[in-house]
Amino acid sequence: MKITATQENGQGMWRLMETLFPMYRSLIGPGYAASLSRLAQELPLEVHEIPSGTKVFDWTVPKGFKVNEAYVEAPDGSRPIDFTKNHYHVWSHSSPFFGEMNLEELKQHIAVHHLLPDAIPYRFTYYREKWGISASQEQVESLKSGNYKVHIDTELFDDFLRIGELYLPGKSEKEIVIPSYLCHPHGANDNLSGVVVGMELFKILQSIPDRRYSYRLLIWPETIGAISYIAQFQERIKNVVGGLMLSICGDPGRFEIKKSFCGDSFVDRAVIHALQHYGREYKVFNYEQSGSDERQFNAPGLRVPMVRMSRSFSTYPEYHSSKDDLTLVTEEALLGTLELCCRAIEIMEQDVTYKPNFVVEPFLSGHGIYPYDLGAGEGHRSDRIVQAYYDLAGWIDGQHSLLDIATALDEPIDIFERPISDMLRVGLIEEV
Amino acid sequence: MKITATQENGQGMWRLMETLFPMYRSLIGPGYAASLSRLAQELPLEVHEIPSGTKVFDWTVPKGFKVNEAYVEAPDGSRPIDFTKNHYHVWSHSSPFFGEMNLEELKQHIAVHHLLPDAIPYRFTYYREKWGISASQEQVESLKSGNYKVHIDTELFDDFLRIGELYLPGKSEKEIVIPSYLCHPHGANDNLSGVVVGMELFKILQSIPDRRYSYRLLIWPETIGAISYIAQFQERIKNVVGGLMLSICGDPGRFEIKKSFCGDSFVDRAVIHALQHYGREYKVFNYEQSGSDERQFNAPGLRVPMVRMSRSFSTYPEYHSSKDDLTLVTEEALLGTLELCCRAIEIMEQDVTYKPNFVVEPFLSGHGIYPYDLGAGEGHRSDRIVQAYYDLAGWIDGQHSLLDIATALDEPIDIFERPISDMLRVGLIEEV
Amino acid sequence: MKITATQENGQGMWRLMETLFPMYRSLIGPGYAASLSRLAQELPLEVHEIPSGTKVFDWTVPKGFKVNEAYVEAPDGSRPIDFTKNHYHVWSHSSPFFGEMNLEELKQHIAVHHLLPDAIPYRFTYYREKWGISASQEQVESLKSGNYKVHIDTELFDDFLRIGELYLPGKSEKEIVIPSYLCHPHGANDNLSGVVVGMELFKILQSIPDRRYSYRLLIWPETIGAISYIAQFQERIKNVVGGLMLSICGDPGRFEIKKSFCGDSFVDRAVIHALQHYGREYKVFNYEQSGSDERQFNAPGLRVPMVRMSRSFSTYPEYHSSKDDLTLVTEEALLGTLELCCRAIEIMEQDVTYKPNFVVEPFLSGHGIYPYDLGAGEGHRSDRIVQAYYDLAGWIDGQHSLLDIATALDEPIDIFERPISDMLRVGLIEEV
Repeated sequence: MKITATQENGQGMWRLMETLFPMYRSLIGPGYAASLSRLAQELPLEVHEIPSGTKVFDWTVPKGFKVNEAYVEAPDGSRPIDFTKNHYHVWSHSSPFFGEMNLEELKQHIAVHHLLPDAIPYRFTYYREKWGISASQEQVESLKSGNYKVHIDTELFDDFLRIGELYLPGKSEKEIVIPSYLCHPHGANDNLSGVVVGMELFKILQSIPDRRYSYRLLIWPETIGAISYIAQFQERIKNVVGGLMLSICGDPGRFEIKKSFCGDSFVDRAVIHALQHYGREYKVFNYEQSGSDERQFNAPGLRVPMVRMSRSFSTYPEYHSSKDDLTLVTEEALLGTLELCCRAIEIMEQDVTYKPNFVVEPFLSGHGIYPYDLGAGEGHRSDRIVQAYYDLAGWIDGQHSLLDIATALDEPIDIFERPISDMLRVGLIEEV
Repeated sequence: MKITATQENGQGMWRLMETLFPMYRSLIGPGYAASLSRLAQELPLEVHEIPSGTKVFDWTVPKGFKVNEAYVEAPDGSRPIDFTKNHYHVWSHSSPFFGEMNLEELKQHIAVHHLLPDAIPYRFTYYREKWGISASQEQVESLKSGNYKVHIDTELFDDFLRIGELYLPGKSEKEIVIPSYLCHPHGANDNLSGVVVGMELFKILQSIPDRRYSYRLLIWPETIGAISYIAQFQERIKNVVGGLMLSICGDPGRFEIKKSFCGDSFVDRAVIHALQHYGREYKVFNYEQSGSDERQFNAPGLRVPMVRMSRSFSTYPEYHSSKDDLTLVTEEALLGTLELCCRAIEIMEQDVTYKPNFVVEPFLSGHGIYPYDLGAGEGHRSDRIVQAYYDLAGWIDGQHSLLDIATALDEPIDIFERPISDMLRVGLIEEV
Repeated sequence: MKITATQENGQGMWRLMETLFPMYRSLIGPGYAASLSRLAQELPLEVHEIPSGTKVFDWTVPKGFKVNEAYVEAPDGSRPIDFTKNHYHVWSHSSPFFGEMNLEELKQHIAVHHLLPDAIPYRFTYYREKWGISASQEQVESLKSGNYKVHIDTELFDDFLRIGELYLPGKSEKEIVIPSYLCHPHGANDNLSGVVVGMELFKILQSIPDRRYSYRLLIWPETIGAISYIAQFQERIKNVVGGLMLSICGDPGRFEIKKSFCGDSFVDRAVIHALQHYGREYKVFNYEQSGSDERQFNAPGLRVPMVRMSRSFSTYPEYHSSKDDLTLVTEEALLGTLELCCRAIEIMEQDVTYKPNFVVEPFLSGHGIYPYDLGAGEGHRSDRIVQAYYDLAGWIDGQHSLLDIATALDEPIDIFERPISDMLRVGLIEEV
């Protein structure tokens, strides 16, 4: 089975990025709902709606959030901070507030970015009633002393947490889940990039016949979305055997992969095999608790191995700020990430364990599959595929999967395609 | 739980060193008995007396030993070697002997120190009837040829092997045993230092409420004491889960730790964790069969992990000689060893395995334990204790102990104190 | 138990080499049969005959092969390629062929050696009906254009695959199998060297009383011989616990050892221990599927650990050519390989697991086995054998074999000979 991404997929992802980027989102609210509806035009997503106030484990689904109007009025009547100029000025889920205060007091409520003087930080207060403003360092420094009017006309109202889901059944009920999150205000790299890669990946997967595994795409708001889904759809996750979390997938940096908690699952090994054999720069990190929704699947109560696939993690300076915009993301990088996902899934699909119907070395030429055409029997065995026939005859024992064998031999798993197909056809091996 | 040693403990150990050092001891005999009585004034030791001749496994408890008078008389009537001048001149448990011989023959019976010309070696012949004298190289060289009278008036008599024991019960019957030996003639570093550290450690431990483990201090003569105790009190050691052997603990050298046979027991790991996170110079050695009474606990029939805690092992030149005196030992070094023992035990007491009462990441702020005061939720997680809350939420699974987790995260176990206390209080976790 | 090879064994091997080298062999045929008969004069081999056409697993025993006459006649009537001048000119099991063709067409049927211009390559076509000629590059270049007559008068006829076997029973039915192959046309290094080392090893082994293991020597044609034996004598291999494949054993290069598939079997460890402690240059390779009959025993259906013992593997340029002659092999190298085999077997025989009849350290002097004569009890323990008494008292636990212990202590297993003998005699230990 070949799972391949093309230039066309790159263009599709870029168009979707451009469509979604201008829309203003939060955990729950109209912009998020509109964004998810837009995605549902691309793929037949099932959309779940979970009401605000629903208990999900020990969490509670928050209210929806919208901003009617929000600004800070200076002593001279100007509005140096204004939501209409930049959506990052109001903290996500900030309480409404109307009041007057001097500059020093105002500054206590303004978050600034620690690294970039002209970036407005992305801040939120989902689970603590509080009001808050963000502004750039430059803006704050230009404020003159005096009395300021703060006008934050936000609304927190009963709404629904929304999750988009697409399930592609395979030959096995064993399922690989691929989540991403849609809740950041704009965030091109974090995390529209993850969303569009996930969407495009499922466009490709749904056209692949004879999928071995089943696949489930999940688009939700970060953390509470994952927790709500797991709490509400426990019967849907009982077949999940692993996953790939797409987070920050669009910048042209090296691949940065975070292993699952277990660290050596078939997903970890497939992703690392893909990286090792396809000439891209990468770094593999051990599991650690910081990160995104891979946390929930790797958590003590599930311990489903979920690998995080990223480009720069959260180490790029524009992370969580108004500067995380379309200039950070390239079509080529999105396509690179998509290709890597395709390769990793292709490897998982190929990573089967076979058992031998032979005791000692099988008589390949008697079965008509001795690869004379590749130079076998000519007195040397330089051809790697010829060697692969021999290697498989020695390794296939019902214990070692093809990826185990490829890893032991330091060969790409692809090399086994022809010998496995031959051996299956003549009945020398069968799937365990 | 904090287990701490103070300057006062250092002074207490030094006073006891000065009291015990002048007393002349052997495996069994009046000096040993008096020394143990002196210890029993400091702590309520139970004293066991096992008669000479008792079979303990395939060993036999030796007789008691004392020296009435012992000297070598030179041809000129002088006594160049005289027990009254130095107790090391007579081998411990030397048979009595009275005779005359020329210098060459005499020299066959005199042990000298191989490294230090003015040191008299400590020699013993507990299990072979034999007479023997020790002297310094300088003394032997100054002997003139001629006939010498040897007068060794020692007595070997029925007595009792004596063991001092202190048991401190804890919440669990699981027991940590801390042995040391008191049998060397004087021996400041080897091994009064081990004895006084053990004594002081139990003064501290008995004042600690809510000990998780039970603790047992054992002071005995080396080898035969350990073997006798194990043979005679098998019901008392059935709960022993590990131990710390105190041997050569008083010189200011680096810590030298010998792992248990198993090498990776909770005791090994606690001691190594203490060393790794508290800035002292140290070296960890793999188990090997040379050493002290850690041998008996690690032996094939018990395989109780016992770690040896030392400063310089037996590699200092004055080892087993008349030069192993109070000048080798410092109050500061004794206190350092005591502090390390306290740290190691503190770590063992903290090294609990908890299981989660949550499935995915728990809602810390809902439980009122989100550490806002440490900067949590301010858009970065630089604080290590804030991070520890997250880490524990990912690691606590009923399988990994706190020391496992600390080791995996390369953090000192202390960092978990506040999050564990919080999580226990609100019922998010419980002890396995 | 000492298993030693002498100069005399070296001479015996060399004589046998010289006898066998001139005889022309193939998988099955008169030269192979005569060679095996010659071996049966040296040792009481049982000779099995398996008829051509017999099904062995999914293989079929080939026909016998002989060459009546074979040459290529040049346009001038000369015979530049002639079987009477060199047996390598005709491929083993080449079909007969009589025909005429021009030089270009002829060259399609001539195999040449890729590295050595004057070597005639050894080629075979056992399982594909085909005719073929080998010649040196120099010969082929000297051929002038024109029409050539090819006259290959070979016969393929019903015969028997022949296997020579010698079984030496030991105290245990557990069996170590030592195969080698006799099928190459001449081949001094590959593989008469392996055959003569195996033969001489069994001359030594049959004179060793009280062998712990049973041993089985097997001489066969490569691959099909091993497969036929395993297929036909399954009851004879059910006790095989490991083996040593002798292949290319006669050149003076370093030892090159290929581990078994399992990689850490008692055979692997014995061979590596022998190499580590006996000062020869060597390299250990991980298992890989290229090689000789170790493949069949390590195969998925058996997974019997078989180590391959070689000098230069197949990396010498003369490999599989007319240049693999007596100049490549030395008596000294053959003897070195034989000695290493003896050492490895000696180690396997010594590698016993004992259990202790003691709980803590045993009282060696009470049992009369304290090695006072080696300086034990003299205040230092520099002697390694004295130390070995202590080490064994700590390690022997019914779990660790002597080779485990030797490996852990980084000592040669020999060092335990005296202490083990002492401890067994006084009943401190017994075999598991």
